[in-house]
Amino acid sequence: MTISLYQTSVPIFVQFLTSLSATLDKAAAFAEAKKVDPSVLLNTRLAPDMFPLVRQVRAATDHAISACGRLAGADLPTFANTEASIPELKDRIAKTIDFLKSLKAAQIDGTEAKEIKITLPSGATREFTGQSLLLGNSLPNFYFHCTTAYDILRHCGVELGKRDFMGTPVSL
Amino acid sequence: MTISLYQTSVPIFVQFLTSLSATLDKAAAFAEAKKVDPSVLLNTRLAPDMFPLVRQVRAATDHAISACGRLAGADLPTFANTEASIPELKDRIAKTIDFLKSLKAAQIDGTEAKEIKITLPSGATREFTGQSLLLGNSLPNFYFHCTTAYDILRHCGVELGKRDFMGTPVSL
Repeated sequence: MTISLYQTSVPIFVQFLTSLSATLDKAAAFAEAKKVDPSVLLNTRLAPDMFPLVRQVRAATDHAISACGRLAGADLPTFANTEASIPELKDRIAKTIDFLKSLKAAQIDGTEAKEIKITLPSGATREFTGQSLLLGNSLPNFYFHCTTAYDILRHCGVELGKRDFMGTPVSL
Repeated sequence: MTISLYQTSVPIFVQFLTSLSATLDKAAAFAEAKKVDPSVLLNTRLAPDMFPLVRQVRAATDHAISACGRLAGADLPTFANTEASIPELKDRIAKTIDFLKSLKAAQIDGTEAKEIKITLPSGATREFTGQSLLLGNSLPNFYFHCTTAYDILRHCGVELGKRDFMGTPVSL
């Protein structure tokens, strides 16, 4: 027995993007109760040279799309990266989930050894296999940004617990 | 083609535990340069009801041991949970890595459907398959605690970047 690359990717990304979106609902309710502009939360960072919440959420969606889209060989949806409100961020997450769900297991399974070259914003390129991209790059980065989004909101005082981070486990 | 449960677990946990240990070296150097007691860092939390750094590191090792040990059917090493210094935490990480490296691929591969029942500290039990334990529980929790450890140190001002979190990619 072995596990499939599809099971290791799409349902996992969907689970944690869904929980991230629900976490943003709690952030919105917190801002309303405290009479704080939600953009204060979106622009909060844990250190001056770390991304603020809004970019943590964008990065989480980017890693999910990049991994699954490249494995499947699908066109990657792009965003204007101008989200400045919680509803706009939730819309980005929803569009990401729609894209992930549009991919079929047959498109992703079997791409373990597929050669994938990624050009970084710096212009440098990195070469992966499908497996090394997903396991060694995309999943850890995805979890990094989802966790840091959660950590920022916890640091701001939003009442969240580990269950909010984990969301509803998918059947694997 | 498919991927193996061993490749999805042991080398990944080892990569990120190794980077976590190196991150603690930078924390120690920071404390020394700033003439701050390292225990201040170990007891820093991002919110009053979140775990401090020392427990984030313990939790990261626990999830790695629990996942790989249960998949392999090996006795799980335990710790006294009394670490109060950076060298003691690094020793715990090193012992965790030694345990993970002692497990053979043949012990872990093929355990995707293995029934695993875990009794939580509350006394409640949760049932998993090998695959659902690793992908849906242990890896996300492991990354959660590694990331939050990193976030705490960044928040304290330790000079770290994403490369410190990622460490040296393993061959997958």
